[in-house]
Amino acid sequence: MATRDQNLVDIRRDLHQYPEEGWKEFRTTALVAEELDDRGFTLHLGPNAVDPDERLGVPADDEIAAAVERARDLGAPERYLDQMDGITGLVAEKRYGDGPVVGIRVDMDALARQEAMDDDHRPARDGFASKHPGEMHACAHDGHTAIGLGIARELDDNGGFDGTLKLFFQPAEEGGRGGKPMSETDHLDDVDQMLALHLGLGEETGTVVAGYDRPLSNAKLDVTFHGEPAHAGGEPHAGKNAAQALGAAIQNLYAIPRHGDGKTRINVGQVHSNNAQNVISEEAELRVEVRGETASLNEYMLGKARNVIEHAAGMHECSHDESLYGKTTTFDCDESMVRAVADAAGDIDGVSTVKDRKEFGGSEDASYLIRQVQEQGGEATYIGVGASNPAGHHTAYFDIDEESLAVGVDVVCETLRAL
Amino acid sequence: MATRDQNLVDIRRDLHQYPEEGWKEFRTTALVAEELDDRGFTLHLGPNAVDPDERLGVPADDEIAAAVERARDLGAPERYLDQMDGITGLVAEKRYGDGPVVGIRVDMDALARQEAMDDDHRPARDGFASKHPGEMHACAHDGHTAIGLGIARELDDNGGFDGTLKLFFQPAEEGGRGGKPMSETDHLDDVDQMLALHLGLGEETGTVVAGYDRPLSNAKLDVTFHGEPAHAGGEPHAGKNAAQALGAAIQNLYAIPRHGDGKTRINVGQVHSNNAQNVISEEAELRVEVRGETASLNEYMLGKARNVIEHAAGMHECSHDESLYGKTTTFDCDESMVRAVADAAGDIDGVSTVKDRKEFGGSEDASYLIRQVQEQGGEATYIGVGASNPAGHHTAYFDIDEESLAVGVDVVCETLRAL
Amino acid sequence: MATRDQNLVDIRRDLHQYPEEGWKEFRTTALVAEELDDRGFTLHLGPNAVDPDERLGVPADDEIAAAVERARDLGAPERYLDQMDGITGLVAEKRYGDGPVVGIRVDMDALARQEAMDDDHRPARDGFASKHPGEMHACAHDGHTAIGLGIARELDDNGGFDGTLKLFFQPAEEGGRGGKPMSETDHLDDVDQMLALHLGLGEETGTVVAGYDRPLSNAKLDVTFHGEPAHAGGEPHAGKNAAQALGAAIQNLYAIPRHGDGKTRINVGQVHSNNAQNVISEEAELRVEVRGETASLNEYMLGKARNVIEHAAGMHECSHDESLYGKTTTFDCDESMVRAVADAAGDIDGVSTVKDRKEFGGSEDASYLIRQVQEQGGEATYIGVGASNPAGHHTAYFDIDEESLAVGVDVVCETLRAL
Amino acid sequence: MATRDQNLVDIRRDLHQYPEEGWKEFRTTALVAEELDDRGFTLHLGPNAVDPDERLGVPADDEIAAAVERARDLGAPERYLDQMDGITGLVAEKRYGDGPVVGIRVDMDALARQEAMDDDHRPARDGFASKHPGEMHACAHDGHTAIGLGIARELDDNGGFDGTLKLFFQPAEEGGRGGKPMSETDHLDDVDQMLALHLGLGEETGTVVAGYDRPLSNAKLDVTFHGEPAHAGGEPHAGKNAAQALGAAIQNLYAIPRHGDGKTRINVGQVHSNNAQNVISEEAELRVEVRGETASLNEYMLGKARNVIEHAAGMHECSHDESLYGKTTTFDCDESMVRAVADAAGDIDGVSTVKDRKEFGGSEDASYLIRQVQEQGGEATYIGVGASNPAGHHTAYFDIDEESLAVGVDVVCETLRAL
Repeated sequence: MATRDQNLVDIRRDLHQYPEEGWKEFRTTALVAEELDDRGFTLHLGPNAVDPDERLGVPADDEIAAAVERARDLGAPERYLDQMDGITGLVAEKRYGDGPVVGIRVDMDALARQEAMDDDHRPARDGFASKHPGEMHACAHDGHTAIGLGIARELDDNGGFDGTLKLFFQPAEEGGRGGKPMSETDHLDDVDQMLALHLGLGEETGTVVAGYDRPLSNAKLDVTFHGEPAHAGGEPHAGKNAAQALGAAIQNLYAIPRHGDGKTRINVGQVHSNNAQNVISEEAELRVEVRGETASLNEYMLGKARNVIEHAAGMHECSHDESLYGKTTTFDCDESMVRAVADAAGDIDGVSTVKDRKEFGGSEDASYLIRQVQEQGGEATYIGVGASNPAGHHTAYFDIDEESLAVGVDVVCETLRAL
Repeated sequence: MATRDQNLVDIRRDLHQYPEEGWKEFRTTALVAEELDDRGFTLHLGPNAVDPDERLGVPADDEIAAAVERARDLGAPERYLDQMDGITGLVAEKRYGDGPVVGIRVDMDALARQEAMDDDHRPARDGFASKHPGEMHACAHDGHTAIGLGIARELDDNGGFDGTLKLFFQPAEEGGRGGKPMSETDHLDDVDQMLALHLGLGEETGTVVAGYDRPLSNAKLDVTFHGEPAHAGGEPHAGKNAAQALGAAIQNLYAIPRHGDGKTRINVGQVHSNNAQNVISEEAELRVEVRGETASLNEYMLGKARNVIEHAAGMHECSHDESLYGKTTTFDCDESMVRAVADAAGDIDGVSTVKDRKEFGGSEDASYLIRQVQEQGGEATYIGVGASNPAGHHTAYFDIDEESLAVGVDVVCETLRAL
Repeated sequence: MATRDQNLVDIRRDLHQYPEEGWKEFRTTALVAEELDDRGFTLHLGPNAVDPDERLGVPADDEIAAAVERARDLGAPERYLDQMDGITGLVAEKRYGDGPVVGIRVDMDALARQEAMDDDHRPARDGFASKHPGEMHACAHDGHTAIGLGIARELDDNGGFDGTLKLFFQPAEEGGRGGKPMSETDHLDDVDQMLALHLGLGEETGTVVAGYDRPLSNAKLDVTFHGEPAHAGGEPHAGKNAAQALGAAIQNLYAIPRHGDGKTRINVGQVHSNNAQNVISEEAELRVEVRGETASLNEYMLGKARNVIEHAAGMHECSHDESLYGKTTTFDCDESMVRAVADAAGDIDGVSTVKDRKEFGGSEDASYLIRQVQEQGGEATYIGVGASNPAGHHTAYFDIDEESLAVGVDVVCETLRAL
Repeated sequence: MATRDQNLVDIRRDLHQYPEEGWKEFRTTALVAEELDDRGFTLHLGPNAVDPDERLGVPADDEIAAAVERARDLGAPERYLDQMDGITGLVAEKRYGDGPVVGIRVDMDALARQEAMDDDHRPARDGFASKHPGEMHACAHDGHTAIGLGIARELDDNGGFDGTLKLFFQPAEEGGRGGKPMSETDHLDDVDQMLALHLGLGEETGTVVAGYDRPLSNAKLDVTFHGEPAHAGGEPHAGKNAAQALGAAIQNLYAIPRHGDGKTRINVGQVHSNNAQNVISEEAELRVEVRGETASLNEYMLGKARNVIEHAAGMHECSHDESLYGKTTTFDCDESMVRAVADAAGDIDGVSTVKDRKEFGGSEDASYLIRQVQEQGGEATYIGVGASNPAGHHTAYFDIDEESLAVGVDVVCETLRAL
């Protein structure tokens, strides 16, 4: 934990080696908090950064405890771990002038996947691949966190800007689990402008997209069917077959009618049932995701999915549990902010192409923060910073061109100075 | 209508030309009634032969009316049509001695199928094929009715037997629709022995099976899913898709778990949905049949099927109607009766082979009459009379060897005389 | 057949009383041909108007023969019926000047549905409802044909325009069955501009839409699964169950994955299987429709649907037949033509609102004629003429405000004169 | 490894503490081999006891290697481990007289399940519960192995019998994986009588069932569907969805038609697909079991299941692998042997009830050994020895009344002496 002496690339590589999945970003949060504390930022940690009751897809208590312990073992300062009280996330603010309050949102969490460990993968070749088996920064959030810190450094070391800087280091973006609980605090109440950003997204280094619009609204459901076991040879009639409920659910979920008003999506990502072959399946789990081009199309899909699941259970005389694992909404960037970013980006060394707007394609839970600011009369945009990724997001060989880190910092700082 | 002057073969051929589907046997009933009336039998017709409220799978009123009209046009005497009052079926009884009351049950209805009309088919070749398009005696009930009349003639012309003869001319055996309503009357209350019989069933002429056991219990459900139409191109989300309910129902009906206690069956025989291709299906019908080796296995299947149907509807936000189209139960023949029939059959000219017992295989709604008699302490058997059928039951080329008619009459009369 | 003395409203009402489904428009074609023949148009009838081998969804021979006979009985002149030789459709052309060849396409076919016959429905109230049970002009093609004739009259009686008029009276638009075979002839080779039009489409009388863009590409498949029957009680294993193939097909057709590039649609409009309940289903039919926002998305859906159907058959050991019932493609109107129509419409009495462009929503097989003209360098648009419909297209109470007929004629004629 | 000094109960408890799953019974095999070697039996170990190429459901090489290593660590003699060469199983024979060669088959493998570890469970309470997490003797094979050794001791210590004793210590009975490879060796060629036995099966201690007939033939398939991943939001069309293949497979497997000739069974015991929720499923696994009352009914189910799986894959454009995990057949016990066992059992202390024959219900791969002997003219029976199990077979609280061990030894030895 000596990040204050590291440059952005080193910080990103440090974070890359110690990836932490959603709601487990204790070391990451503490590392950021320590430097911003030193720089005189006001800190709001854990339960003061997110509304604990609004958290989605929270791991089991023992997993959380193990993640805290792991962070402690890796040198995360006790005082920040204490303040977090088992909940990750950080809002840090500092006033430099009388101008607007500008929020910057970056995410910090890693993915549950094993990183490639062969020499075709630069992090492995250069010795900074993940040291946490089964966890990996495969969506550039390590870079985002480094950029968040880089923005604080750049402004703090160079006289700030005419306004207040409010940094949102958001936990649990993957799955859409941390954005809503962060948006439900009062930290957004005075935010006039909000910027969020993402590295990569298929763009080359040197390209800046000044506004990504209309991410798909998204919801994720975890479902368990509960049946009753029975010997499949002797008493097939005596069971209540959770695997049959599962089969009926999969078939009919994908068959939810398309919607005339716009894009909808459905997917069943995980499926598990664990009985022996000669026992009627007692329990079966599935993890479902729906999306819609608008929040209401997403609700349409979520309602239909829940109905299918309920009747798939009933059809095979099973009961079922379901819980919302994550959820995001959608937004359109404000033209004024898009223009501001595009103008600022045009003046930056290392930026060769500026694109005004693109359609998002995927889903993002920055959407909750952005909409909240927009609904109270503020403005926002979601910036893309090209990073020449050698492999797709969420894959084992994902990496970023680290030149993009400085571009990300500069685009945001120039925009702030120009506002 | 001059059957009294006809021999059994002529009667059978007359009936064969004018087949009447279940609950439409007005001409058939009237023809039998006329002769038995002349012979001094006490007649119970239509609503006095079956419990009207217990009828299953009754055609629409206008179809019934058309069937009455057709019978009238074909010369059925008005006085019997009047007594029937729109309901077919006849119980006819005559007392010959102080001995037991013996019930004989024969069925009268034809099938909804077109008879073959080419020269490979004897009824066509010899000019007595069906004159009613789409209706055919393809299960030998024309022969059964002739045998019923033949038994009355044989006994009546030859001094009867020491007991009371009670003839049950049952309507609507196909589908299992007429047996239960006939068994729910009080005509069975005093029956001591019950005999039912069937021609054919895969046996050659000259073979008699003294007892067919354990027909499968059976139930038939008519189901309609009600959805809402919508334009499939513009508003696919606005419909409630009855065809999807249908698809989910079919898939899951066949997947009803097998039962550890014995044979079960499921079938979806008819399926209809009639929308244009560009409209979400508003209505879909299916006709389902379940069976079980025992009455309770049949109930198991019926309960499961209803549950699947309910949830297939709910899964696609449709409502549904369902009605029981027909139902049968099961029985075991009484050994004493099997013995009596076997002994009698052994003495008859034209009988070359006597088999004691066989498993039934199919379903039969004589089951309700047989069980009713057995439950009140009586005895029963279900007799098979070989008829060297040139083609399978229910097919367009089905026919019987008419030599079997006399065998059927003789087996029953000899049994009665020996009881 | 005295249409030459009738005004447009009378012609429309005459056609409305004698609706003819697709490929059965013998009277309609003959009626139009007779007048245009008198006016000196060059006629191309039936096999000279459409490529016979490219026809889709053609009724059975005996149905065609019956339709010819019906037209003859209604007074359709023998000489035109002869020329048609069992195939409907007409291309009629007349040269008025040296300018461009302008094609006008109108459709003539009715729908297979019963018209409302009560007094809430004006055609019934005023005595011009359909005299053909089960057939109805419920999509305004009667009006379209009248307008086609009206355009010929208006131009012919008033000096024509500087160019050649080529009228395409297309059969079998419903289902997308007649457009492609008409586009495969050489009649389009010299067409410089193409206009098609539709009454209604949700617009009030007085509104003109100068260009409808991007109808959904569409394909319709007729599928029959062939299995093998067996007794569902005795030998359930011996059948090959076409109803199960049907169930698997329905479930998996609706579950064809959505496409990331744009709208797709799937529907199963008709389903039939006709066995008795106690027989494993020998044959099952379904009628499927797919759509895509582009021709390639339509092909995606069609390919996926065919694969589902093939494996649904294979899964239940059935074979299957499939045939394309109809197909349409998509287009964008040319801006120059949209402008020309909008400008012309602005000057017409009875037009109160002009809309430049709208999205089509549904599907149209004028698409084949329009694309063909565009691909050879010509220009085209698809015009909407408001008609204040009291009920939705394709419903039993559909009607048009007949004021719209004159508007339709005028918009086209003014556009031609201004070109 | 000091079993020679232990009594049967101690041996059973020793085995119970060190349960080894199928094909991992290295310690168990070595322990038995050591004592029988000392007693002068001729040993055939591992590749000499089973045909290596016929083994089914063999664990991965590294799992086998770990099991060997574990056995070595627990003191299994190196010389037997060497002879096994990675394959478990033992045939041991000794000639005592000129009479018949009698085969005794016992199984040795444990189940993959965690044993209950609380005081309600006697093995836990008395300190002999499983020391191998996730493995448990929950089907009494520890007792069977002990009985096998007990039979050898009893005969060997008391002058043998007039014939040759051939003991088959079979590996991998669970799943039906070891019986067939053992039956494919030549060890059965000279066997005149074959006895197999099972403890428990719902009978109280003191009850002996002289012949269990007609176990269900059984086959187990392991199936993996291989699709292609794609982002479920951006490119749902680009994937090939293994989870959809899975859903279609489950629905249609359970819907395999029942068979008119007798009992059939189908079950899907395990299902797995592991993608993130936002990725189209790349791979999905299922473990299927079919059964039939006869070998040919089992083949019917297996063929149908394979067809469903193939087309479920094809329907969703996936490929698939499948492998047979295990297989059993069926048999009827020979009356002569049943009589011999029943007579012998009647004379034994501790036997209070002798039942001649029962229906098996479940499946058994001793079936391959028994049929092989019967087909070459020998005789066989499958004996049940009551053991008052406190909980069902295969459950966490399964245990046996150890009094049953002596009964098992005595029934077999008395039968041999009487043959």
